[in-house]
Amino acid sequence: MRSNEKLLSLPELAGVDALVAMSPENFAYVSGTFILTVELLRPRQAYAVLAKDSDPVLVVCSIETTLAQEETWIDDIRSYTEFKDEPIDALVSVLKEKGLALGKIGIDLSYLPYNSYALLVDRLPDAEIVDTTDAVATMRGVKTREEVTKIESATQITHRSVIEAMATGRLGETEKTMADRIITGLIERGAEGSLFGVFSSGERTRMPHAMPSDRVPKVSEIIRFDVGGRFGPWKSDFARTYSTGKPTDIQRDFYRNLREVQEETIASVRPGAKAEDVFFACKDEFEKREMGFHMPHVGHGFGIELHENPMLRPGDETILKEGMVLNVEPFGFDENGIGYHLEDLLVVTEGGNRLLTLGLAPTELPVIGKPLDQQ
Amino acid sequence: MRSNEKLLSLPELAGVDALVAMSPENFAYVSGTFILTVELLRPRQAYAVLAKDSDPVLVVCSIETTLAQEETWIDDIRSYTEFKDEPIDALVSVLKEKGLALGKIGIDLSYLPYNSYALLVDRLPDAEIVDTTDAVATMRGVKTREEVTKIESATQITHRSVIEAMATGRLGETEKTMADRIITGLIERGAEGSLFGVFSSGERTRMPHAMPSDRVPKVSEIIRFDVGGRFGPWKSDFARTYSTGKPTDIQRDFYRNLREVQEETIASVRPGAKAEDVFFACKDEFEKREMGFHMPHVGHGFGIELHENPMLRPGDETILKEGMVLNVEPFGFDENGIGYHLEDLLVVTEGGNRLLTLGLAPTELPVIGKPLDQQ
Repeated sequence: MRSNEKLLSLPELAGVDALVAMSPENFAYVSGTFILTVELLRPRQAYAVLAKDSDPVLVVCSIETTLAQEETWIDDIRSYTEFKDEPIDALVSVLKEKGLALGKIGIDLSYLPYNSYALLVDRLPDAEIVDTTDAVATMRGVKTREEVTKIESATQITHRSVIEAMATGRLGETEKTMADRIITGLIERGAEGSLFGVFSSGERTRMPHAMPSDRVPKVSEIIRFDVGGRFGPWKSDFARTYSTGKPTDIQRDFYRNLREVQEETIASVRPGAKAEDVFFACKDEFEKREMGFHMPHVGHGFGIELHENPMLRPGDETILKEGMVLNVEPFGFDENGIGYHLEDLLVVTEGGNRLLTLGLAPTELPVIGKPLDQQ
Repeated sequence: MRSNEKLLSLPELAGVDALVAMSPENFAYVSGTFILTVELLRPRQAYAVLAKDSDPVLVVCSIETTLAQEETWIDDIRSYTEFKDEPIDALVSVLKEKGLALGKIGIDLSYLPYNSYALLVDRLPDAEIVDTTDAVATMRGVKTREEVTKIESATQITHRSVIEAMATGRLGETEKTMADRIITGLIERGAEGSLFGVFSSGERTRMPHAMPSDRVPKVSEIIRFDVGGRFGPWKSDFARTYSTGKPTDIQRDFYRNLREVQEETIASVRPGAKAEDVFFACKDEFEKREMGFHMPHVGHGFGIELHENPMLRPGDETILKEGMVLNVEPFGFDENGIGYHLEDLLVVTEGGNRLLTLGLAPTELPVIGKPLDQQ
């Protein structure tokens, strides 16, 4: 999946004696094992410990040992017994064994709950505890070819499921029925499960993250959705906007403009540009077309975490590099307050970028229930 | 959903001037609004602030304001702009406005990341910050009638989907195909999405949390799964064990024993018993039958969080009360190391308990592809 040497360089890169990856995303990335309960049952913490000049160690709940053995590249796996042992104590044993009771220990302080931090400091009063959330996240940001392939496959499965679901959708169906078709299609095409499924129509599109309801969309309404699936540790995140038929001029024009904005914004993504440059490019395109611009960000790094660094937002001066995978997702409201959203995934390449979705959205507002040549 | 007076009593119950509910589960419970991104995008924190003798306040990311307005019982909703504002600063403004800069503030220190805690202490150096994770979790533990109805519906949808999926399953299909049928059935019957879908067969049942693979189960093998869906903030969590046909004597006997253990364990659940009593009852039943017992817990409170208090484990002396909703889930390995698992949901009632699943598992090891009268 990635070179272990790269991972083993993390303590040095982060300037620490040992780096402990323990947020669900950082743990999955460093350990190479995807333990769903690390995310779903937060007290069941797991740690990937990379100490300088020493063999890496994994610490997991005993229940998960067999799964970890099956998947991780790390030979030395320790376990603790849930409820009987404090997970932090199992981590502290490893750190002490490595002679690091006085060392500089990096850990995910953007994730580690305060209670666990307090225990860690209590057990290692003379160690220096620093935050290395971003050191791991930054390494995660640049994907290997194998990682891009996995993310591309997840995205294309999602896109394909959307195209088929919306071609099958009919007036008279509820939001829930149409949303279910996307989500079940995703799973039948390979996702292990759904991650989220935002789906709304008409007035409900004002809410950025409305769940599908029993509302039956009427003719001349907008349908907007943003869906994602789980593919092991990898995810998908994809948004499109449709019409139920007979769109109004306002709808047609707003969509056409947003679709142009999406194309122009994506054209601004290239190695050497800053993350915030893409934000400002998008903002300019909105303003050129006199569309209200209200987004705190216009996209984000993507892969294991739903929003990864870099964020396409003002103030993020990360220089874009080949291998970064980004979602670009302009979102706007027309003069009636109806929401429109398009989201595509791309990878930064030497010459600019390459789309990982099957293609940009149709240039004209697509209508449900009609086969679409190009979506 | 529940009486607001009960929620408003939380600061008094917890002995604090203000209680801030902010773990995804505690926030959903106190606010009455389910914002998926609070869970999926951890930096997008949201807070439900209950201050003594004062009106409650909700603090959410501006993107989620419209959704919160639609769902919450709290009138006063404040927002912050992502990336521009620190969420903690928006919380601190509210606390200062309530005159609590010197107050005793309860917050979810089992969830609040250390970095956010450090900011909070920096902004409110003279406040006393204490942990109130459990105060809210304890209140969540006893469900109202309306809450039980929602959880019961989620469980029965899940159970029904399992029965139909396994009656349809055939030898020659992969684990993934059979698992997909359960998950898509769940969604088509009302879940908004899947929460998890553990599914394994044969040797793979040794791993407690294996994801479905492309393995094709052979005849005379065990299939074991543990699945759950999302129903707004509510969840389901349900496990069963099947055979692919022609079970061996070892399989038949082990299953029969586990099924008896499940019935006896559930019979021990009644108001006044301690949580750990149920654990020991289960352990006794295993030992009586000379089955190896390896579980750190045999079940758990359930509802909004996958594992809620009380936990059916040694040391949890919580007295069971009417309205508590518990999963009971004995898990064992036969002499060949093959895993078996049964999980049912119940609510503690005045006279003992009432099953929320459609019924206990069949008394004899069920076989895929055969319609089952009683599952």
